[in-house]
Amino acid sequence: MRIAIIGGTGRQGFGLALRLVRGGAEVLIGSRSEERARQKVEELEQRLGTHGVRAARKVQGLDNREVVRQADTIFMTVPYPAGREIAASLKDILQGKVLVDISVPLKSFKPPEVELPPEGSAAEEIQALLGDEIKVVGAFKTISAHALNDLDQEIASDVLICGDDEEAKARVIQICERLGLRGIDAGGLGSARTIERLSALCIRLNQIHKRKAIGIRLTGI
Amino acid sequence: MRIAIIGGTGRQGFGLALRLVRGGAEVLIGSRSEERARQKVEELEQRLGTHGVRAARKVQGLDNREVVRQADTIFMTVPYPAGREIAASLKDILQGKVLVDISVPLKSFKPPEVELPPEGSAAEEIQALLGDEIKVVGAFKTISAHALNDLDQEIASDVLICGDDEEAKARVIQICERLGLRGIDAGGLGSARTIERLSALCIRLNQIHKRKAIGIRLTGI
Repeated sequence: MRIAIIGGTGRQGFGLALRLVRGGAEVLIGSRSEERARQKVEELEQRLGTHGVRAARKVQGLDNREVVRQADTIFMTVPYPAGREIAASLKDILQGKVLVDISVPLKSFKPPEVELPPEGSAAEEIQALLGDEIKVVGAFKTISAHALNDLDQEIASDVLICGDDEEAKARVIQICERLGLRGIDAGGLGSARTIERLSALCIRLNQIHKRKAIGIRLTGI
Repeated sequence: MRIAIIGGTGRQGFGLALRLVRGGAEVLIGSRSEERARQKVEELEQRLGTHGVRAARKVQGLDNREVVRQADTIFMTVPYPAGREIAASLKDILQGKVLVDISVPLKSFKPPEVELPPEGSAAEEIQALLGDEIKVVGAFKTISAHALNDLDQEIASDVLICGDDEEAKARVIQICERLGLRGIDAGGLGSARTIERLSALCIRLNQIHKRKAIGIRLTGI
């Protein structure tokens, strides 16, 4: 399992990379700057080393185009809206691949409010931008960067996964297993309209209850 | 603690009544027809009797106006949109009281889709209709009627509670404790925009995963 993370030098992307490598996946950290990507790989090896995990040969740092070329599943972790432009610039080499969109279109942080694009959600917007040959899956939108980066804590939250392609969703559910998380099929890509708002509600709950990593777990499933 | 349930003869209201009486609260089941309300009280006593709970003197069936007169906290459990008209007709005697709105404005069930009113959510709409002297709290929107009625199963879900009056929310959180549930302050009434959509997503999840009572529990709180 080889996974590319565009924006893997950012906090959410880095947290995903940490947990994926720890779970045994091969990860390609992408950045606009290959040098920055390589620095992050060193940081990741150090972090995992203190947790007794040898990361060598499981993780590489490359520029964004190169990580897309070498992987079938690509996480887009550049914050909204910048991620859209980057995705559009990579459209030619994303053909036939799965793009996992984790973004939330926040227009303000305090209070947290989303401003969803005309397509209905950030996930649907990026799908419209990329066309049908690239399978967009919305996931990890309610998993905080704080939770991903805090390797001392298990994440009890579920990963809500939405998308219009069943095979692509199944692949992301499998990746969740590698992370020790429960991935839940939450329907078509349109479910992102609710899930992106739910992400803002989680931020609000963190503010009200003075926490950092409130998430969602489904009951009765 | 005396709680009125308008529409207490419906499935969601009846489930709430069952669990409230079991938890030791005094409940007034309201209906347009006092006779129907009394029938439901008998049904409730029988149901609880088979669970070893004596309900006598803890529950009464009356017409809607009478239950509002005799309680300080009123649950509006008549499905959207009919509940709005009933609430408006009771505005005079609701003054100074807390109205708990549990409704979800579904426009279709399969797939489940909400159509939120211009005020933003059903909860905000009913607040606008009733005016500031009546404190509206949105709650129980993601707790299914099935879960409430199935007394053999504990409910692991949290109750997301939103409203613009802190004291009113605190009262509803206390009621949740009586039900053995964790009530979570989810911010102002505007949070209902997300919570009502989340309710529809829970219905969708039930459909996808062939379950009946999928709900939400917060993690990291």
